[in-house]
Amino acid sequence: MGKTILITGGARSGKSAIAEARALGLAPSASYPNAIYIATAEAHDAEMASRIAAHEARRSQAWSTHAEPLDLTGALVATDGRGPRLVDCLTLWLTNLMLGGHDWRIAGRALVAALPVQVDPVIIVTNEVGAGVVPDNSLAREFRDAAGLLNQWVAAVADEVIFAVAGLPLKVK
Amino acid sequence: MGKTILITGGARSGKSAIAEARALGLAPSASYPNAIYIATAEAHDAEMASRIAAHEARRSQAWSTHAEPLDLTGALVATDGRGPRLVDCLTLWLTNLMLGGHDWRIAGRALVAALPVQVDPVIIVTNEVGAGVVPDNSLAREFRDAAGLLNQWVAAVADEVIFAVAGLPLKVK
Amino acid sequence: MGKTILITGGARSGKSAIAEARALGLAPSASYPNAIYIATAEAHDAEMASRIAAHEARRSQAWSTHAEPLDLTGALVATDGRGPRLVDCLTLWLTNLMLGGHDWRIAGRALVAALPVQVDPVIIVTNEVGAGVVPDNSLAREFRDAAGLLNQWVAAVADEVIFAVAGLPLKVK
Repeated sequence: MGKTILITGGARSGKSAIAEARALGLAPSASYPNAIYIATAEAHDAEMASRIAAHEARRSQAWSTHAEPLDLTGALVATDGRGPRLVDCLTLWLTNLMLGGHDWRIAGRALVAALPVQVDPVIIVTNEVGAGVVPDNSLAREFRDAAGLLNQWVAAVADEVIFAVAGLPLKVK
Repeated sequence: MGKTILITGGARSGKSAIAEARALGLAPSASYPNAIYIATAEAHDAEMASRIAAHEARRSQAWSTHAEPLDLTGALVATDGRGPRLVDCLTLWLTNLMLGGHDWRIAGRALVAALPVQVDPVIIVTNEVGAGVVPDNSLAREFRDAAGLLNQWVAAVADEVIFAVAGLPLKVK
Repeated sequence: MGKTILITGGARSGKSAIAEARALGLAPSASYPNAIYIATAEAHDAEMASRIAAHEARRSQAWSTHAEPLDLTGALVATDGRGPRLVDCLTLWLTNLMLGGHDWRIAGRALVAALPVQVDPVIIVTNEVGAGVVPDNSLAREFRDAAGLLNQWVAAVADEVIFAVAGLPLKVK
């Protein structure tokens, strides 16, 4: 069965670069010509579009990219058997679910059920959002709570959990 | 002498569940039928009441609960000799002290003096609140500073310090 | 060649005290009578002036202090050969650069080039600012991103990286 690796950390903690190195280390081989990048980001505004473009520019030809803002579990099922998958990132997926009025708990449970039965590895990038002062508005608190719970759920089924600090990996599990 | 364990982490990092498991691992026995839950939370609003109820629902019959928003040191002294105590949490206690116009430094020093002389173990849950951007308003900065200092004081006398990441314990001390 | 040590953590996580202990551990000796404190803070307001005064009060006679809000690399070059340097802190230096309209990337690259060729050790304090919810305003997000990248750059050339939690050092590199 494929290995699930969760890589968490604050903004600009170097999570994506660590995750990309791990995914490429598991690919490519004779059987895996590519690693598969599953992008959950949607370009809602110019700032977001520029972040997505910067991420794409850094990735080499070793990657094939699938954009999937909502049906992450479906994207994993569809790409299984074709190489290691990098999901970047869980927090944006949660944002898309919540903004779209979907039940993130149902979607999260489906993801957690699908991960252990994947044949190819899945490396998931997520964000630590709960270590600042309590946000003023209740929507931000609700998002913060959901993000923390989703991280816990995925970490519970992950084979490996890494906390990124200043671009360096700290092994948690 | 009882062991002091401090469990810190961001919001929804799984601190309470880790702390509860540790407390129950130290209880119950022939001499300790229960673990003692010392709740510092006050239900100031509906959101808080709902969080408290969710916490209570998760805890089993193995617990006896003491609500103590202000005199935490008194609650520890009063419950010593009756089993391991779980304090949840230090940050809400600090909030109560500051909102009530009490001197948190005096109360904090009294707590730090009382911890090493407890006969039964004390497991304390606290929050990391200082790893976001600097808050705009000075009251939030003052609270953030106080929370960080209080965590340092308790960590200095603790036998064990754990940093919770995505529900997993990272040993710091 | 001198050792570079990066000490990161949230607000009031005990970073400065850990850094000061490390710097004094490398000084003083027959050849190094003092450790050198390079302060990047500027007293923009009364709160900041009070923080700076509190830091100064804690430091003993074992230190000589150099205030340098902008030309950090120049300050390192000028003090090399006179003892271990403690830079407190990288995040305030970045703030000064950005507020002054300087290009922090150019200044950051110059710092990263200078660190490995220092003869005497350099201990650098910095802040984790990216683990809260995403800030509302774009300037705060830009600062948060810059701070995270600068931390990564320095961590990449550092010999040792420490993450401070509740006053305790967690070794990352």
